[in-house]
Amino acid sequence: MNPIQAPTLEMNFLLQQVFDAGNVWQKLPAIAELLDLETASAILEEGSRFCSEQIQPLNQRGDAQGVGFDGIQVTTPAGYPEVFRQYAAGGWVGLCGEPEFGGMGMPKMLGVLLDEMGYSASNAFTLYGALTAGAALCIHAHGSEALKALYLPKLYSGEWAGAMDMTEPQAGSDLRNIATRAEPQADGSYRINGSKMFITGGDHDLTSNVIHLVLAKIQGSDGISLFLVPKFKVNAAGDIGDANGVTVGAIEHKMGLKGSATCVMNYDDAEGYLIGRANRGLICMFTMMNYERLSIGIQGLGSAQCAYQMATAYAKERLQGLAAGGSPTGAKADPLVVHGDVRRMLMSIRALTEAGRALAMMTGMQLDGAKYAATESEKQQASKFAALLTPVAKAFLSDRGFDACVTAQQVFGGHGYISETGIEQLVRDTRIAQIYEGTNGIQAIDFLGRKLAGDNLATVTEFFGLLQQQQQSCAPIFVKEQQQLQQLQQQFLDVIAAVNQQKHDNPALINAVAVDALDAFGYLLYGHFWLMMADRALKATELPAAFVSGKQQLCHYYFAKQLPKVAMHLAAVAAGDDTVMQPVSDWF
Amino acid sequence: MNPIQAPTLEMNFLLQQVFDAGNVWQKLPAIAELLDLETASAILEEGSRFCSEQIQPLNQRGDAQGVGFDGIQVTTPAGYPEVFRQYAAGGWVGLCGEPEFGGMGMPKMLGVLLDEMGYSASNAFTLYGALTAGAALCIHAHGSEALKALYLPKLYSGEWAGAMDMTEPQAGSDLRNIATRAEPQADGSYRINGSKMFITGGDHDLTSNVIHLVLAKIQGSDGISLFLVPKFKVNAAGDIGDANGVTVGAIEHKMGLKGSATCVMNYDDAEGYLIGRANRGLICMFTMMNYERLSIGIQGLGSAQCAYQMATAYAKERLQGLAAGGSPTGAKADPLVVHGDVRRMLMSIRALTEAGRALAMMTGMQLDGAKYAATESEKQQASKFAALLTPVAKAFLSDRGFDACVTAQQVFGGHGYISETGIEQLVRDTRIAQIYEGTNGIQAIDFLGRKLAGDNLATVTEFFGLLQQQQQSCAPIFVKEQQQLQQLQQQFLDVIAAVNQQKHDNPALINAVAVDALDAFGYLLYGHFWLMMADRALKATELPAAFVSGKQQLCHYYFAKQLPKVAMHLAAVAAGDDTVMQPVSDWF
Repeated sequence: MNPIQAPTLEMNFLLQQVFDAGNVWQKLPAIAELLDLETASAILEEGSRFCSEQIQPLNQRGDAQGVGFDGIQVTTPAGYPEVFRQYAAGGWVGLCGEPEFGGMGMPKMLGVLLDEMGYSASNAFTLYGALTAGAALCIHAHGSEALKALYLPKLYSGEWAGAMDMTEPQAGSDLRNIATRAEPQADGSYRINGSKMFITGGDHDLTSNVIHLVLAKIQGSDGISLFLVPKFKVNAAGDIGDANGVTVGAIEHKMGLKGSATCVMNYDDAEGYLIGRANRGLICMFTMMNYERLSIGIQGLGSAQCAYQMATAYAKERLQGLAAGGSPTGAKADPLVVHGDVRRMLMSIRALTEAGRALAMMTGMQLDGAKYAATESEKQQASKFAALLTPVAKAFLSDRGFDACVTAQQVFGGHGYISETGIEQLVRDTRIAQIYEGTNGIQAIDFLGRKLAGDNLATVTEFFGLLQQQQQSCAPIFVKEQQQLQQLQQQFLDVIAAVNQQKHDNPALINAVAVDALDAFGYLLYGHFWLMMADRALKATELPAAFVSGKQQLCHYYFAKQLPKVAMHLAAVAAGDDTVMQPVSDWF
Repeated sequence: MNPIQAPTLEMNFLLQQVFDAGNVWQKLPAIAELLDLETASAILEEGSRFCSEQIQPLNQRGDAQGVGFDGIQVTTPAGYPEVFRQYAAGGWVGLCGEPEFGGMGMPKMLGVLLDEMGYSASNAFTLYGALTAGAALCIHAHGSEALKALYLPKLYSGEWAGAMDMTEPQAGSDLRNIATRAEPQADGSYRINGSKMFITGGDHDLTSNVIHLVLAKIQGSDGISLFLVPKFKVNAAGDIGDANGVTVGAIEHKMGLKGSATCVMNYDDAEGYLIGRANRGLICMFTMMNYERLSIGIQGLGSAQCAYQMATAYAKERLQGLAAGGSPTGAKADPLVVHGDVRRMLMSIRALTEAGRALAMMTGMQLDGAKYAATESEKQQASKFAALLTPVAKAFLSDRGFDACVTAQQVFGGHGYISETGIEQLVRDTRIAQIYEGTNGIQAIDFLGRKLAGDNLATVTEFFGLLQQQQQSCAPIFVKEQQQLQQLQQQFLDVIAAVNQQKHDNPALINAVAVDALDAFGYLLYGHFWLMMADRALKATELPAAFVSGKQQLCHYYFAKQLPKVAMHLAAVAAGDDTVMQPVSDWF
């Protein structure tokens, strides 16, 4: 497999021309002093180099070797520990962390691009750092000053890693029924007992400690609380002490992601420390989960980008068949890339991946606004938009990411099914992104039920207003695309308004049509991004001509071939839930 | 994993009510004397039992163990040889074979149902028999009387197996460039030298001989010829003699289908016998390939049926979350099947799988007509329809089959990613069906380029006429569905007619829009099947009430939620190829 090169030209284009990040960052006081476009670009280059040179070479053999478990300790594939230490030393784990505790304080709009590069290079490897950064985010948002001071510096530096311990055999998507218990101790700590499953990075040999964020119920309460439970106890000076009653029961054998340890965790009188308020653990955990949801969306995006590069390289190199109308070179066989159907596949991956990158960045930008904006009202608006976009980023990026991998595999023909090529691993690794951190169905229900119907479409209407404003800044040649988007936005609002009106009379409706609603929104939003990318490329002065014309072609492709999906998904939403809910359960 | 039960009630319903197989078979002289509906039903029950009791138990451990190769001989997973012998002894390999040579002479419309059961039970195991039956079909159609007499009885009885040796490293989708050579010998045989790859069932320990159908070029000619090349030479009495210079170079490590051997084959002065005329090998091989294409479509169908049963069982058993509006039983958690989004997934798998079965059967029925019809004109019409439907059956059934497996995996949530559950194996095993026997892109180009544009839409127009005739026999309550289908059929013809008109001026067009054309046709045809199934269930007198109302619900579901895809795919066809063909190759 050739080394994957992160598309830094594309990334810089989005930062500079499409999102005008220089100006955006200028308005965020904490960012303005740290970062400008030039520095951002240098960080991208540095990250790209690390990912291609250090992380990617681990990926295929990590899949072949998998993680090991001797009954006590989980070991990662050969090379993982060394490269993780370099990764941590490079500051990549703490990239968006708090400078006060040793983080680099970078905005998430930049962070998402580094996440993408990591996942492009290796899904399995990159998860370890992503979970660590997410755990740090949660501890920073909800932990006591003492916990922050003790744990954040070690997490940002990657000396220790983080894990998110939620699922139990009887409690997956629905966490109300967890059985792990926390007993209050005289010293203010808690004694944790119970068991969890599907814990990504629950144990490994990358770091000297693993910091678990564990959901449990405090003795005598049915509310859910969040606890920090280290694998090894830590004294006040930050030194590692005794084992803490946190052990691995088993590791799972999975379809893919074989370099990532998925553990059954057991807590036997483990010492834990409450994070945030008692019985408010789900709210605290959601801070981490929302972060991870975006990250997992980006897992799909990173895989899609990798899939595109792999498929494109193969399509240019593999000679098979003649171009329609005869070989342009008179050869016995032309490269696959001359064939319309192969191009159709490559265009679909590319158009959806580039728009997907814009979605990830826009979500990151809203998270930055929610955290760093100068005024409270700006923070609130950004926070609402981040909440609106997070389930879309998680579900739509991972769904389209999986599609991209499967499509790229198709470009390889029979070779795509052979392990050696590497593309089938990408399909297997990426598949989980549609499932974990809340299945994509759960994301869609959150999106339609809470984010749209939850405020009677106020946020989405406001969001569409923002998009329209941006669309109106486009050059006159795009008037047709603008009109088409505005009509579809209105159509979307009309269909969703009808759902909203019925939500009380028909409580089953939202669950039944949510996935189509999210898909309609996703394809519509990508239409917006394609219009913006085409327009901004045209207006830019220093871009290569092929880059600019490529954006026009992709925009036309997207409007012609992908945007019709909006109406199709809206038709499915408008058709309601009768045909789905009528059969009795036994009939299935 | 629970044993999968073949849906024999559904199968009998399709045979009896939808396709009126009793009458159809009465009109085919060779079939009428062998088979009635009652016998067919008994065969289905017997096949179902064998598949659940014997084949399915091999499936999961076959994946874990995989095939072995010691440098000389390929070994299949434990249990395969014993069960294959029973399978062969039961007459299943020769089910549709010629009675003259020991086959059972059953129609393909019945055979497809047995194929489905086999693939539902195990993709990997069932392939061995399918290839053997396909090789026999080809030898019967094109081989000399001597070859038929020597080889067919041993193939139908499953004492020997068949393989199809086409692909070479430089010649996959495009076979013109194969390099394997055949040198004529004084005794009329040929000496074969060369190498092939991706040979499914190229070697194994299920049978005492493997009969390869090998494409090669006769010395001095650039035409392609087809040769029968046995692993072991066979004397005139049918006894196995010396090894024949056919050896395995390697086996491939694949994403799935690990119980099926995928071999590199080497021919070193191997003795081969010409099948059919010299330089006409591709036409002969297409007899086998068309058979295998239907079979591979059915691989997708069988997987989809298995996926439905697995997902449904899990959705009824797994308790998670509460029904919208509160648990109907007051439980702490309801089964997944109460949730609208889970039902959406199950309905989509079921609706597409049941219509898919009808497509497989209709294709089988046309193949039967082409072979057994009483008049030449009936044979010709059936032959044209079989040619029209074969690429659709291969591509649409395997694409929808893969979708079904992925969707079913989603129903399992996190458990779907774990090997233990078995559903991830189904995803991996089924993926290849979209690729081998001609990628689904190749199928689409065959469909649009040859089968539609090849006769300026004459066959498809005639075929739609047949469908309309059947639709008009439906009860008046279905008038809306009839009208909708007829409008869509007209729309399909209009859009394809425009493509047909441009095909000479723009030779790249067909390749670029073929997949969307095939998908539009597939979703439209499934609409037809749903109308027919709903109508015929209503008119039947002896079906359970829940069965009848289920067909109405699935029909309504299909028209509401799936049929809108026809317009979406037609929009993509109508948008032409400009946006796909314009970028220069280097830009990708």
